Amino acid sequence: MAEMVRETLTLEGHLIDSDILRRVFDRVVEEGGEFEVQEFRVGRTNDEPSYTRIEVRARDEEGLDHILEALRYLGATSQVADCRFAPAEQDGILPDDFYSTTNFDTSVRIDGRWVTAADQKMDSALVLREGVPHCVKQRQVRQGEKVALRGPGIRVRPLERSRDYAVFGFMSNDVSAEVNKAIVIRAAAREMKRVRAAGERIVVVPGPAVVHSGGAPALAGLVRDRWVDVILTGNAFAVHDLEKAIVGTSLGVCQTSGRSVEGGSRNHLYAINAVNRLGGVRQAVEAGLVKSGVMYEAVRHGTPFVLAGSIRDDGPLNDVVTDTVVAQKAYLEALRGAGCCLMLASALHSIAIGNLLPARVRTICVDMLESVPVKLGNRGTMQAIGLVTDVGYFLERLAVELQTPLP
Amino acid sequence: MAEMVRETLTLEGHLIDSDILRRVFDRVVEEGGEFEVQEFRVGRTNDEPSYTRIEVRARDEEGLDHILEALRYLGATSQVADCRFAPAEQDGILPDDFYSTTNFDTSVRIDGRWVTAADQKMDSALVLREGVPHCVKQRQVRQGEKVALRGPGIRVRPLERSRDYAVFGFMSNDVSAEVNKAIVIRAAAREMKRVRAAGERIVVVPGPAVVHSGGAPALAGLVRDRWVDVILTGNAFAVHDLEKAIVGTSLGVCQTSGRSVEGGSRNHLYAINAVNRLGGVRQAVEAGLVKSGVMYEAVRHGTPFVLAGSIRDDGPLNDVVTDTVVAQKAYLEALRGAGCCLMLASALHSIAIGNLLPARVRTICVDMLESVPVKLGNRGTMQAIGLVTDVGYFLERLAVELQTPLP
Amino acid sequence: MAEMVRETLTLEGHLIDSDILRRVFDRVVEEGGEFEVQEFRVGRTNDEPSYTRIEVRARDEEGLDHILEALRYLGATSQVADCRFAPAEQDGILPDDFYSTTNFDTSVRIDGRWVTAADQKMDSALVLREGVPHCVKQRQVRQGEKVALRGPGIRVRPLERSRDYAVFGFMSNDVSAEVNKAIVIRAAAREMKRVRAAGERIVVVPGPAVVHSGGAPALAGLVRDRWVDVILTGNAFAVHDLEKAIVGTSLGVCQTSGRSVEGGSRNHLYAINAVNRLGGVRQAVEAGLVKSGVMYEAVRHGTPFVLAGSIRDDGPLNDVVTDTVVAQKAYLEALRGAGCCLMLASALHSIAIGNLLPARVRTICVDMLESVPVKLGNRGTMQAIGLVTDVGYFLERLAVELQTPLP
Amino acid sequence: MAEMVRETLTLEGHLIDSDILRRVFDRVVEEGGEFEVQEFRVGRTNDEPSYTRIEVRARDEEGLDHILEALRYLGATSQVADCRFAPAEQDGILPDDFYSTTNFDTSVRIDGRWVTAADQKMDSALVLREGVPHCVKQRQVRQGEKVALRGPGIRVRPLERSRDYAVFGFMSNDVSAEVNKAIVIRAAAREMKRVRAAGERIVVVPGPAVVHSGGAPALAGLVRDRWVDVILTGNAFAVHDLEKAIVGTSLGVCQTSGRSVEGGSRNHLYAINAVNRLGGVRQAVEAGLVKSGVMYEAVRHGTPFVLAGSIRDDGPLNDVVTDTVVAQKAYLEALRGAGCCLMLASALHSIAIGNLLPARVRTICVDMLESVPVKLGNRGTMQAIGLVTDVGYFLERLAVELQTPLP
Repeated sequence: MAEMVRETLTLEGHLIDSDILRRVFDRVVEEGGEFEVQEFRVGRTNDEPSYTRIEVRARDEEGLDHILEALRYLGATSQVADCRFAPAEQDGILPDDFYSTTNFDTSVRIDGRWVTAADQKMDSALVLREGVPHCVKQRQVRQGEKVALRGPGIRVRPLERSRDYAVFGFMSNDVSAEVNKAIVIRAAAREMKRVRAAGERIVVVPGPAVVHSGGAPALAGLVRDRWVDVILTGNAFAVHDLEKAIVGTSLGVCQTSGRSVEGGSRNHLYAINAVNRLGGVRQAVEAGLVKSGVMYEAVRHGTPFVLAGSIRDDGPLNDVVTDTVVAQKAYLEALRGAGCCLMLASALHSIAIGNLLPARVRTICVDMLESVPVKLGNRGTMQAIGLVTDVGYFLERLAVELQTPLP
Repeated sequence: MAEMVRETLTLEGHLIDSDILRRVFDRVVEEGGEFEVQEFRVGRTNDEPSYTRIEVRARDEEGLDHILEALRYLGATSQVADCRFAPAEQDGILPDDFYSTTNFDTSVRIDGRWVTAADQKMDSALVLREGVPHCVKQRQVRQGEKVALRGPGIRVRPLERSRDYAVFGFMSNDVSAEVNKAIVIRAAAREMKRVRAAGERIVVVPGPAVVHSGGAPALAGLVRDRWVDVILTGNAFAVHDLEKAIVGTSLGVCQTSGRSVEGGSRNHLYAINAVNRLGGVRQAVEAGLVKSGVMYEAVRHGTPFVLAGSIRDDGPLNDVVTDTVVAQKAYLEALRGAGCCLMLASALHSIAIGNLLPARVRTICVDMLESVPVKLGNRGTMQAIGLVTDVGYFLERLAVELQTPLP
Repeated sequence: MAEMVRETLTLEGHLIDSDILRRVFDRVVEEGGEFEVQEFRVGRTNDEPSYTRIEVRARDEEGLDHILEALRYLGATSQVADCRFAPAEQDGILPDDFYSTTNFDTSVRIDGRWVTAADQKMDSALVLREGVPHCVKQRQVRQGEKVALRGPGIRVRPLERSRDYAVFGFMSNDVSAEVNKAIVIRAAAREMKRVRAAGERIVVVPGPAVVHSGGAPALAGLVRDRWVDVILTGNAFAVHDLEKAIVGTSLGVCQTSGRSVEGGSRNHLYAINAVNRLGGVRQAVEAGLVKSGVMYEAVRHGTPFVLAGSIRDDGPLNDVVTDTVVAQKAYLEALRGAGCCLMLASALHSIAIGNLLPARVRTICVDMLESVPVKLGNRGTMQAIGLVTDVGYFLERLAVELQTPLP
Repeated sequence: MAEMVRETLTLEGHLIDSDILRRVFDRVVEEGGEFEVQEFRVGRTNDEPSYTRIEVRARDEEGLDHILEALRYLGATSQVADCRFAPAEQDGILPDDFYSTTNFDTSVRIDGRWVTAADQKMDSALVLREGVPHCVKQRQVRQGEKVALRGPGIRVRPLERSRDYAVFGFMSNDVSAEVNKAIVIRAAAREMKRVRAAGERIVVVPGPAVVHSGGAPALAGLVRDRWVDVILTGNAFAVHDLEKAIVGTSLGVCQTSGRSVEGGSRNHLYAINAVNRLGGVRQAVEAGLVKSGVMYEAVRHGTPFVLAGSIRDDGPLNDVVTDTVVAQKAYLEALRGAGCCLMLASALHSIAIGNLLPARVRTICVDMLESVPVKLGNRGTMQAIGLVTDVGYFLERLAVELQTPLP
């Protein structure tokens, strides 16, 4: 024991009800270390922060470094020192020792001052631009830019559990089909109203199942009633929605039976062809080809949308951003100011957007499968509430709840 | 009844055991029509084709057209007439009346002769190039090219059920977790040997879960033993595989717990950074950075791979084709000569590749979820056998079976 | 080939659109035999039956017997001969060569006359009682009763696909989350109205998830409006429903969060205790303890219910039939006259009831998981339409549709 | 605020790393109360317990009671007072104010002394028998027996997270298909060896899918090698296993195709009939009818098994305990001394056994569906580790791991 290396850390915040302290203890033990709590002041009430000073011990320097790095992701601070930086070697190539961000708010110590990082999102480098650290995706870093290195001088503020248990906080991290769906949907509606009142934006990420499941009219209604500030999706959702609008009842078969009938997918291509001939979605609405649906309402009300390309696309529509790196940038722009995000039956786009959102954005992930919100959580979008239900049901009930005034 | 419009059709082939005749009857009735079988000669043995002549009746011309179009997708031929063509209006814009292909072998009647279409795949236009109809994805059609129109002169040959019940045919269209997996895996191995003997190619489409689930060493072994002719996947699978190879045991945590631990995803970015710094996957193997795994074996043995970009990518690797339209073309090229396709726990890429394969390619889709092979079937990849199991299990057993000589 | 054994069979009915002929061909080939179609007359229109005479060949007598037995389950008849019978050896013990029933209507040839079996259900013996063959579950057969043996003299009439494509027939055997749920629910409502008009009975089989998911008020409404003729379920559904009625808003926590909170399951036991103290469900309603919910409406309107015991029961309620053999008999009695069956999110009871229903009863199986209707089909309840959605959604929409008069 | 009612509580134990303190704070706030931490001594190292004294405030007495009851389930103690008791009104009828147990170890204060409850399991009454409180299922309580009432004098000791992170503790409460299965299976094998060394018993709960999936030979091997001390299941698993043993290769079809083929379920009934004719499973093994499989090995090695009846049973076998209340008692007896429990693809029996086990029994739940372990956790069996994989894979790898000596 005598030969162990050790370091003293401090943590401050809602250490217990944000579950920080437990995870700190866990990580120390998991990494083969030991700890001793030297001081602990618990927040006496549910508004007061707690404070602790902990000595962490490990067998060698390398082990201690591992532990310290993990604990820094939980908000621990050790020696008070400035953050170190090194230049990006080439465009898109970081120094090996780069710090990789989480989606929690992060501060960087520069010249003795803690500066909050801009554009918070996970799995990014912290790049110094005009004196301010920015979260920048690897590929967007330019040669020579100063990139923060892991080690001292970086501090994260893990998400606090919501104090407002009546809204979203009450079931975070739980995923189950066994809840009273109506209650969760009511909470989502309340959250949307709060976000709207706060002047933040509501992002909707619909998958093609929204159309399959019969939820498109409800979603179109939400766009019409201005409950949607931006739509982020791919080619498939847009085409399904347009196809329904253009081929109307003669689409029939597929909407009736849910089966891929002989020749049925021709309608899909027909819709793409007709829209692309006019130039794109906006032109198709303006020309009167498209007279209903989610995309129609989006164009009519000026709701911005970004369609990201994917390898399985038919067509695609001219509106689709086929380069995925460019599309990711467009998503990022569109997400500015987001206060709330509805992920609707689209595993691909939900995970993509989870990668781009700060954890503080209230997020609900609606899917028929428990595995989608579970995956989302596994990939770090811990804030997403999983609601395992039919997306059509969700949208219809949500529309009703949004019309109900708050008590 | 007197005022009904009518037309006489003929069909030839394995009308009963390929389930064609039943679907013909179904479609006539579903579309509100009536039929009268005027002649029927059943194949007397299981090698002889059947033949039938049917009169179809509908209330009006439009209804009859609908029925005829559907039946043509099932192989019905009516008036003997040449196929009609019209020029593509612009690059990527088809005449409204274009014929949309299935993944079944298709013939086009030109100047009184039936010509087999090249590059058979679903949801394509039939474009006349040097006198031969080619299946061409909408966006790849050039202005002025002659595009086949729906109507007479196009004939498909729906997939016949395999006569070789010992191999794949025995459970096509069935999807269930309730099968003896060992037996299905044995059949897959037999099929791979048959394909190999026939000089056709084996395509593997692995998702990141192959690495998560512990199946990567088995897949690397298959590549090493030359059981894999081409790997089609995305950034995520490749990065997971490389990360495991590069960060080795210090990746540790994630491979131990399966959780996205604090700071754990840094390893992901680190691997991308290290590989991209050297130029890409091949260079990383040649430089000795990567010394094991699927990508390593692929480089070492010259197994081609295509990595298609997606909106949720970290990085991505320099090898990734970020433009999805370009990536689709690269997939198409890589699929030439395919005789067998293993789709391994990747919904996105499986559906993408189903869109590009002729139905005659023997396909097995391994996933933990019944919904993935169900979706694949819904989208027209009817030939895919769904095996609901752990992909790691599949790969380990498959490797054993491939070493077992046939009896 | 010369030394092959052979036999000639005839089949009559909707051989093609009921998919019989294809399965006949399949089975012959799967079992290693060969066939030759000696005569085939196809039904010329969609109302006319077809007829065929087929010679089947196998390598030896045993192989031929296998094939013939399989084909008999598909309705094939060979030599015209009476059915053979042998006495049950003991109570519940059948002669080894017993015939095992399907859920398709079955006739038995006795003294040269075809007699329709009574109480048709799968996996039963055919026992002669007062000259009529009855489908009797193994354990209910009494010593010395005459039991039909497999071989000639037994004929089944496989289910014909519904000609009424607007109702249930259109998607039988298909299971997918990717359908427009509203359309399927509308069809279910139409079917319930048809059944009601025909004087048949509507059976509902609810699982506890009906209460969890918030669907209980809608189901209670259906009982109140007399759309439910019998409720077959277990202890759990009834207790959840009663608990909600008795503990009301103080149940609170669980209905709010969907989690099993500390001490929360006490309410479950409290409800059981309170109901059992009064004697049972009926008494609890009469005493005014229970004033709402599905069980309340059932008691008030005299809707019969059977609660079958299971190994995971809390309590159970005094009303529960704890002996599963006795409960199965009670279910059987309650199912007489059934024309339609709604299986609502209960895998256990759905499979149990599938075992007891003739295939002609229109059945819909609503579940969040594709695997439940898939299992149901695997176990022979082929007639069940799988609807993959939230049961709460199903019930709310169904209630609306049932109030909508038919056009 | 002045008019709030208040009470002071103390808690002791691993309050932070067992996640107790966070849940205490949560529950106070969720129930509308407030708290003030008056004293807190954190365990300085990972072996020392923590201690806290908290004042809880609520708006009224009823609210305070709610909070106190919830906190008692988390181990909080308030006034030091003896537990109150009241007599059971009738057989199976408890006083309304009964205390309902959890599966955590519980102590009851009697005459100033804390006495540990016997037969710990959830959802039971605490009945005083010979001076010791016993956990007794509601229905087993006899009239006049003294039943503990909720309120002071009852203390639970919530499960501590395992300190031995190399074994089971590392992923408790996590459910995901996205783990390296091999690592989890290795941990399960280690746990079985530990349990064996400690002289505790290993309980296996197999569902019929063990046979379907091809895992039966591996499980039979475990029984043969004495890794299984008791088998708790139902009729279906036993019949599937026996059917495979008896009908051998002629079962064929079903084992080959996984489909319910025409007439295929006759083999199921045949096996039941043959076994019951001889008297039961033991007799069928002794008579040489059954020569392989799990049940065969169990009989040969004297491994006890209990088969509980269910409403969906065919037959059932004579060995089946058809009365579910009696079967539950038999399960309980069989579970004495359990140290480890493997739940293998059987939702029904897994939940049943979770109801009967103390939380300290290490439990792993293997299923293809995330929803099964999620449900198990929702119902209070929090200790169960969910492993989402193919049960056949699990058993084969487990057998290999158990043969590997510990390093």
